[in-house]
Amino acid sequence: MSKIAIDMMGTDLGIKPIIDALKVFMKKYDDVTFVLIGDEKELKSATAAAKLDNTKYEIFATTEVIAMMEGMMEVRRKPNSSMVRGTELLRDQKVDALVSGGSTATFLAACHFIVGEISGVSRPAFMPFIPTVNKGKSVLMLDVGANLENDAQDLVNFAIMASVYAQEIMHNPKPRIAILNIGEEASKGKDYHKEAYKLLANNKKIFFKGNIEPRDITSDVVDIVVTDGFTGNIALKTLEGMAKNLMGVIKHELTKNFYRKLKAFSLRKAFRGVRETFDYRNNAAALVLGLKAIAVKTHGSSDAKSWISTLELTRTAVVNDFVQKMKIKLLKGD
Amino acid sequence: MSKIAIDMMGTDLGIKPIIDALKVFMKKYDDVTFVLIGDEKELKSATAAAKLDNTKYEIFATTEVIAMMEGMMEVRRKPNSSMVRGTELLRDQKVDALVSGGSTATFLAACHFIVGEISGVSRPAFMPFIPTVNKGKSVLMLDVGANLENDAQDLVNFAIMASVYAQEIMHNPKPRIAILNIGEEASKGKDYHKEAYKLLANNKKIFFKGNIEPRDITSDVVDIVVTDGFTGNIALKTLEGMAKNLMGVIKHELTKNFYRKLKAFSLRKAFRGVRETFDYRNNAAALVLGLKAIAVKTHGSSDAKSWISTLELTRTAVVNDFVQKMKIKLLKGD
Repeated sequence: MSKIAIDMMGTDLGIKPIIDALKVFMKKYDDVTFVLIGDEKELKSATAAAKLDNTKYEIFATTEVIAMMEGMMEVRRKPNSSMVRGTELLRDQKVDALVSGGSTATFLAACHFIVGEISGVSRPAFMPFIPTVNKGKSVLMLDVGANLENDAQDLVNFAIMASVYAQEIMHNPKPRIAILNIGEEASKGKDYHKEAYKLLANNKKIFFKGNIEPRDITSDVVDIVVTDGFTGNIALKTLEGMAKNLMGVIKHELTKNFYRKLKAFSLRKAFRGVRETFDYRNNAAALVLGLKAIAVKTHGSSDAKSWISTLELTRTAVVNDFVQKMKIKLLKGD
Repeated sequence: MSKIAIDMMGTDLGIKPIIDALKVFMKKYDDVTFVLIGDEKELKSATAAAKLDNTKYEIFATTEVIAMMEGMMEVRRKPNSSMVRGTELLRDQKVDALVSGGSTATFLAACHFIVGEISGVSRPAFMPFIPTVNKGKSVLMLDVGANLENDAQDLVNFAIMASVYAQEIMHNPKPRIAILNIGEEASKGKDYHKEAYKLLANNKKIFFKGNIEPRDITSDVVDIVVTDGFTGNIALKTLEGMAKNLMGVIKHELTKNFYRKLKAFSLRKAFRGVRETFDYRNNAAALVLGLKAIAVKTHGSSDAKSWISTLELTRTAVVNDFVQKMKIKLLKGD
């Protein structure tokens, strides 16, 4: 039986979507119990109202909340916050994984200072699962915002860690890896891109395909994209924005008059296919890769559907003993 | 009468799309003549075959071609190339503007070394016109790849130059400006972002709106986005790729069976509306901003439609005497 802790506080939408997700998740999976961390009164009332199976969760009462826009200093200022207590449970191995939808900066700081990185990794990275043109097939991209800047060695570590994930969890024996860059030639980009290119090309542990231009992130031509956190964050948010805005324009055109609405309605299955291919709600979660334990960050505005996919991702990493496998691979050097 | 030089060589698709575009353009506008630079035999044959109005163009014969993938060293190695001769014509004020669809790196080097920047500008920038959710409304973004790195003062210069363009050419008296960044707060991003934020917030010449996240580049919430060239290039190519891939998935879903094809066909006007809103062929051109004269770079794979919009953009800049107005604004300091 695995145990997942959830930081229940500090999200944009409150605890309701998390409770709704737990209700669905608990019916589906029998191998996970939860530690729900947060305001005791609120959690007791909400879990009772939702009739959650009380053999599958315990409540860990905390009195402080780190708000969405707060920064890394809050880790020290609010020791009895749900987020800080959660990372302590993770550090002390009282739980197998921790999930939070709260402040990104604070969560990263808490993970770094309280949980710490595995040997040989200097910086953790955010790794989301980005939808591609092939429905159900994601590309892993890292880092997308845990760091502002990264060097060539960071990118090599990212490549190895993501490869382990792809191999062990996604059962992809030869995950294709590329560096996100402004051109495909080895000479493109900044100095650290060129250095990372050389290091990755000579690394026997991974399957390096060279540089990839951003227009192909979602083309399913590689399985893993490595980049510094600033660039990755820019690319990820550009993808999300363009998907949203383009779908918005399509909706605007298809609902301009009654005739179009009617025709569009008759094509609803086709549009559902499009939405399911590029549904970022299935991809709200990002693994915090490189820590000594499994930590997962989900969007602060995640709805119940997003929370279910986040919890499923967390469960998969836990039951496959992902961190242990990654440690072995990094140490063995094969 | 204005005179525009075109570097006819070194594109992906050869001279045909340019000749086709000229045919349309010459019928539409009476105030522009052209200098077509390139292989004499090929140009004579193609212009004759297309029956171009021979009072509206002259051929400038060159013997060398800079290939698409060649770099900045070619400027010195190939003095009699169409691209180098074109920049010399521009430097010597024999023409009012130069357009090229050839190698980006070489074109930039030729513009920098042969034409040179206006006083007070240290680096030119690429400024494309990016479509937004509002059909026909573009957002100006710069730099998108002329530079790998930029400092805070570069971003201020970009903001001022683009503002002049928006005010004088696009008749937008108060163009809204933002810095492309990973968050909206003034404290976000790298040091140069924070410094640029302060400088722009205190600059009376421009209308600064703060930072913008990449998901809102195409949301029509600002008119000008300033960024370093690496980040801008990443964002631009991510936008283009996502638009292409999402439209590809939509096409795939809508043509899955005969029934869907039929329904989709009946909605063709709606889809045309979508395509026209986000048609990057209307936005193939980028101004090389900051030079002493008007230089325009268009995609190497531009088709006739792209070339027409490129020539129209160039004509607009020329007839509005854009560079002169920008010089005055930069000097006056108002």
